[in-house]
Amino acid sequence: MSVKTRRTAEGTAVASSAATAPAPATAPGTPSTGPITREELQLASRNHAMPMEMLRWPVTPVGMHYLLVHFDVPRIDPVSWRLNIAGLVDHPLEYTLPDLQQRERRTHAVTMECAGNGRSRLEPRPMSQPWDQGGVGTAEWTGTPLAPLLLDAGVSPDAVELVFTGADRGIQGGVEHQYARSLTLAEAMSDDVLLAYEINGQTVPPQHGYPVRLLVPGWYGMTSVKWLQSITAIDHSFDGFQQLGSYRYTQNADDPGEPVQRIKVRSLMVPPGIPDFFTRQRAVGAGPVQLSGRAWSGHGTVANVEVCVDGAWEQAHLEPPGGRYAWRGWTFTWIATPGSHELACRATDSTGQTQPETAEWNYQGMGNNDVQRLTVTVKE
Amino acid sequence: MSVKTRRTAEGTAVASSAATAPAPATAPGTPSTGPITREELQLASRNHAMPMEMLRWPVTPVGMHYLLVHFDVPRIDPVSWRLNIAGLVDHPLEYTLPDLQQRERRTHAVTMECAGNGRSRLEPRPMSQPWDQGGVGTAEWTGTPLAPLLLDAGVSPDAVELVFTGADRGIQGGVEHQYARSLTLAEAMSDDVLLAYEINGQTVPPQHGYPVRLLVPGWYGMTSVKWLQSITAIDHSFDGFQQLGSYRYTQNADDPGEPVQRIKVRSLMVPPGIPDFFTRQRAVGAGPVQLSGRAWSGHGTVANVEVCVDGAWEQAHLEPPGGRYAWRGWTFTWIATPGSHELACRATDSTGQTQPETAEWNYQGMGNNDVQRLTVTVKE
Repeated sequence: MSVKTRRTAEGTAVASSAATAPAPATAPGTPSTGPITREELQLASRNHAMPMEMLRWPVTPVGMHYLLVHFDVPRIDPVSWRLNIAGLVDHPLEYTLPDLQQRERRTHAVTMECAGNGRSRLEPRPMSQPWDQGGVGTAEWTGTPLAPLLLDAGVSPDAVELVFTGADRGIQGGVEHQYARSLTLAEAMSDDVLLAYEINGQTVPPQHGYPVRLLVPGWYGMTSVKWLQSITAIDHSFDGFQQLGSYRYTQNADDPGEPVQRIKVRSLMVPPGIPDFFTRQRAVGAGPVQLSGRAWSGHGTVANVEVCVDGAWEQAHLEPPGGRYAWRGWTFTWIATPGSHELACRATDSTGQTQPETAEWNYQGMGNNDVQRLTVTVKE
Repeated sequence: MSVKTRRTAEGTAVASSAATAPAPATAPGTPSTGPITREELQLASRNHAMPMEMLRWPVTPVGMHYLLVHFDVPRIDPVSWRLNIAGLVDHPLEYTLPDLQQRERRTHAVTMECAGNGRSRLEPRPMSQPWDQGGVGTAEWTGTPLAPLLLDAGVSPDAVELVFTGADRGIQGGVEHQYARSLTLAEAMSDDVLLAYEINGQTVPPQHGYPVRLLVPGWYGMTSVKWLQSITAIDHSFDGFQQLGSYRYTQNADDPGEPVQRIKVRSLMVPPGIPDFFTRQRAVGAGPVQLSGRAWSGHGTVANVEVCVDGAWEQAHLEPPGGRYAWRGWTFTWIATPGSHELACRATDSTGQTQPETAEWNYQGMGNNDVQRLTVTVKE
């Protein structure tokens, strides 16, 4: 196959009929210094954060892993479902779910984070899913490696990217589309990329992409396309909304910016003590307190975690790594004295990157890995 | 056992040490006409709503059932975990998890709703978990009936109530406590009350009360105490915070009000068409549209569901009941014409109760079962 015509990744079902999108009450994407809007509250309710105490679990229980659903969770019939590999390939292929389940089976423990995690901490605040810091989770994903399927299909030497299209359809940025993202051929051929059909030993539930999702360890979650329907080899860079219009590090609405890709280094702490229901402020008993948390990076391994108590940084103890793509536990013993204290943690990865003490602003609120700070009250 | 001394339900672990709660930035409970607060956003992120499209599933997938956690999800060791039945009983008993799993096993499909569902729709808006309408879900819960355990323990004729205490501890209303709620002996002896250890055929996950939760079909969710540790028979009405200070229909801060108990009749609709990511506004194609949804009541069976299109109410078609305690599906064929339309649905139960068209305000924002309204845009 050497046809050089420009091909789009969308098939018939993805035909881009420009719908008349209802005018939003608040312009999405436009940063705001105002109060939280109804639209943000609505997104925070339907897109689930991982509560910070769930950092106690090395593998996040299903239902507590972060969840972002751009459009609606589709209800897919596994019997009629097919995965198509098409476009610039020698052998267009079609797989059923049992076809994929009968291929090589592999399990990876993977920490996945939403690219917008930390967005609501920015000022001005980009108008989108208003994550604080809970847009993260770690799961044991089981599936079949993607690369052998691509070899079977015989991707053409003219192919530049592969477009992964999900079954979820809606309107974003005024454009009606099915959710789709691309990878370069080299990225897609990476040995660790899976087509996943199980999570934590169970069938992937509807909200996480049933029956099959893409899983790209180390990359922010938008890459791991859910409800996967087709993989299309194209001879150019994919220009769909989720690739060019979103998930970019930009400074303003007109800035094309740089693509968001791998997960930046981050650490989080289990809030010690007990919470107040409404404020979530913490009350802790005086004496030795075992602080703990987890740290991760999509760029390398976790090299160091430090804990800060009232402004003084100290080394935390790193637990053994939990797997190449999974977060790493850390602990720190704090001698808590009565009064109010500020706790913080920060990680550094093997590439030397560390978390910034103050958030680095960008227009879409992407990749904010600023240091978590907690104020706790220690009782006598 | 005929000791008439006043007993508290709290054991040693529940000793009520009044902690110095940090001053909240916004007074919880105080209704507000102002914008959404950071505290509400934080609660909306950690307490998971069921997205409306999940109404397509008769049984809500684990992870999409609504979830409210007052304090932190505790991490419980199932080996050392015990359930104690104590207080005014002839034979104080202690059960391990296998003890309970070896007893009679029963499964109920149960629709559970948070008592605060609909709270953020009130004006002024009570300051607490800011549900819109997604504080609901239906699960198949498996466990052992409670009544035989109470018979084994030999509850004293002097006992008035049973107090169910969970392992989750925190501060609410300025009071440090473990989450605890009571039932009268008659309510607790009801044949349908379970000690549940499975949901949808799986082990109950941590966030839903692992290893064992109380399950009281037909009652709002606060009754079904998670992470159950003890059942204590007492000779008076339980006066814990979650019984007297919260979950009351009141008109002001000083009004003792009436207790919130059974779930009011309600119906919800799957939003038709496709959503805009940020606003969740819906775009629908012209022509026949199958509207669908589900309806439930803790007071009786669902007798009727009506659908309203642009102000005109019509009968919906009721699907066969899905079980005594589970929601009932309904459908309605709407001929969608281009333009903007308002859709609504309302249910009536076998006791004659129906949903109000406008929300009935109360101080804590409890039991708001007002009619759901959706504005959709129909394309040519």
